Amino acid sequence: MMSAPRRRVSKLRQLAEHQGISGFVISTTPNLRYYAGLSVIAAERFVGTVIPLDSEPVTIVPELERQSLKDQRLPFKNILTYTDAEGPRVVLERALRGAGLARGTLGIEGFLPYKFFVAMSRAVPKAKLKDTSSILLDLRLVKTRDEREIMRAAAEAVRKGIDAGIEAVKVGATELEVSFEIEREIKELGCEAVPYCLVLTGKNSVYVHGITSRTRIQKGDALIIDVAATREGYFADLTRTIFVGSATATQRKVYETVHKAQEKAIRSVRPGIPACKVDRAARGVIEHAGYGKYFVHRTGHGLGLEVHEDPSLAEHCTTMLRAGMTFTVEPGIYLPHKYGVRIEDDIAVTGSGNIPLGQCPKDLLIV
Amino acid sequence: MMSAPRRRVSKLRQLAEHQGISGFVISTTPNLRYYAGLSVIAAERFVGTVIPLDSEPVTIVPELERQSLKDQRLPFKNILTYTDAEGPRVVLERALRGAGLARGTLGIEGFLPYKFFVAMSRAVPKAKLKDTSSILLDLRLVKTRDEREIMRAAAEAVRKGIDAGIEAVKVGATELEVSFEIEREIKELGCEAVPYCLVLTGKNSVYVHGITSRTRIQKGDALIIDVAATREGYFADLTRTIFVGSATATQRKVYETVHKAQEKAIRSVRPGIPACKVDRAARGVIEHAGYGKYFVHRTGHGLGLEVHEDPSLAEHCTTMLRAGMTFTVEPGIYLPHKYGVRIEDDIAVTGSGNIPLGQCPKDLLIV
Repeated sequence: MMSAPRRRVSKLRQLAEHQGISGFVISTTPNLRYYAGLSVIAAERFVGTVIPLDSEPVTIVPELERQSLKDQRLPFKNILTYTDAEGPRVVLERALRGAGLARGTLGIEGFLPYKFFVAMSRAVPKAKLKDTSSILLDLRLVKTRDEREIMRAAAEAVRKGIDAGIEAVKVGATELEVSFEIEREIKELGCEAVPYCLVLTGKNSVYVHGITSRTRIQKGDALIIDVAATREGYFADLTRTIFVGSATATQRKVYETVHKAQEKAIRSVRPGIPACKVDRAARGVIEHAGYGKYFVHRTGHGLGLEVHEDPSLAEHCTTMLRAGMTFTVEPGIYLPHKYGVRIEDDIAVTGSGNIPLGQCPKDLLIV
Repeated sequence: MMSAPRRRVSKLRQLAEHQGISGFVISTTPNLRYYAGLSVIAAERFVGTVIPLDSEPVTIVPELERQSLKDQRLPFKNILTYTDAEGPRVVLERALRGAGLARGTLGIEGFLPYKFFVAMSRAVPKAKLKDTSSILLDLRLVKTRDEREIMRAAAEAVRKGIDAGIEAVKVGATELEVSFEIEREIKELGCEAVPYCLVLTGKNSVYVHGITSRTRIQKGDALIIDVAATREGYFADLTRTIFVGSATATQRKVYETVHKAQEKAIRSVRPGIPACKVDRAARGVIEHAGYGKYFVHRTGHGLGLEVHEDPSLAEHCTTMLRAGMTFTVEPGIYLPHKYGVRIEDDIAVTGSGNIPLGQCPKDLLIV
């Protein structure tokens, strides 16, 4: 049976031929995992796979990753390595020329660092380098059942992690202490990474991308827990807002507004509608309640091998939803210097509507 | 008193004038912190500061970071924001043209994603974009006493974290369980992030960049603990190798070889020698013991606002060491399918030699 990366590369080649592209160089972590079955941490060093249309892909890695690659069951076996002293330029040139990619249009990624773009331009000066991120991402948009099952398992771990965190919430505990319980539970449940675990209490909850700190939880705080974790590279991303000790009438109103906005947005999700309609559904509820200017971000983002990928559930995004797409739905209201409320689920579009990949309980919780 | 970022921008402008550069756009996390005093997590969204030579810098951030920036005491107050729907192109163009940077040579960074390079090229098509990473990094090479003090505090937290991890090492415990103790201790001690916390036992220890897993610790294992943490953005990075229950004669020999290599390398560090000499010192000891081919990486890397920055203590690196430079010294031996040993300290070059910023005990430890 053909491996998943090999099937994906085969599809990619078909798309490329239609668009006059001779081959690709991929070097971002999600594309390397998706198209080359490669799991590697290279930090600032270059790691890439050259994908010609009619010969086997070639992967370039730092010498110090050779052993790690040997021990992975890679779908494509051609590996070239370089030492720190050599740098990647020479093997890059050898791989590209060897694959007949010295001319024609070579597809690269929008997140390729400029310095590697320059190295490639020098390696094959007669080739035209073109940002083909949209093609590379397009195949990743619709998830197979296998992919969705991994995402569901990741979301289940995050949900349980957040539950464990809520168990640790009490007046006087720090945000950090709560986050430790969450991370521990999630990793014990088999997620390999927790790229962020935000626990933001009281005034800290107004920061969409705040920093979990030694701030102590106080009575009356709104407390946002927003956690992203990966399993086999696939993300789950859930957010829950709770209240400590009590919730004022306004806090209740804000919470219920966000809750209603999220429900309405999720109900709107089905194949064939543009992504902006989901944003509009959530935004309409929040505007109607008079909090429109405090909903400072989009309603959601695609989720998969990246924590933010297509589709974007934003005001002007006309991407049509399709069965198999997976994304977050996460409206929020942030009252400056007071508190924020956000509720986030992960969902998948189905043939006729949508199903949750992961969600937390929604009734207002006071602990 | 002038703020540190303002002093640094002033020096940067002097260097730029000498080299015919009209201004810079910086957008990587370490440069934003160093030159703009900015601490922000933008993920895939553009965040940047435009630094003209003769007018105030302008910072561009996503709208949803506006509140977070308002609450930081920023040295430069000019802020432009964009919504997800708008994207950064229009404000980027406004900032660049407003600063008189529509022509001339605009300094950018090597790690600028290709897509933002394209956006800038379109915003100011008559300007020449040039990778000025070397200038931007050059000022960061020599650390002030204030910077070294932060790094020392970060390293102290990492050392204590590793100690806490070693307390949790026992036959049957998992790598993950040990790593939780380490991360908890380090964050409790005031580091804001632990970008990696590798606990690699037995055969896993041969992977320089392995993944901490649910693998259980067994009697006779070599166990590598390699941890990087940041405090106010500055990195500490320490590695310790211990043995579980017992160590064979060969394991002892390998450990002592790495230990000797590291000591010899550190003794060689002083201002005025090329970085490759430190690598040679370590590599010579390991080669002499017959393990040369198993030392698969460079001897160390610069450390500061990045975990890997200049200077590189590698075979062909001719960068001259200067007082105030800070880097790791971390030789290792990796015997395929058996185990690895690595010992890593952080040191600073002084006027006449060097001093440790952070180190762990070195005597062979069997727990």
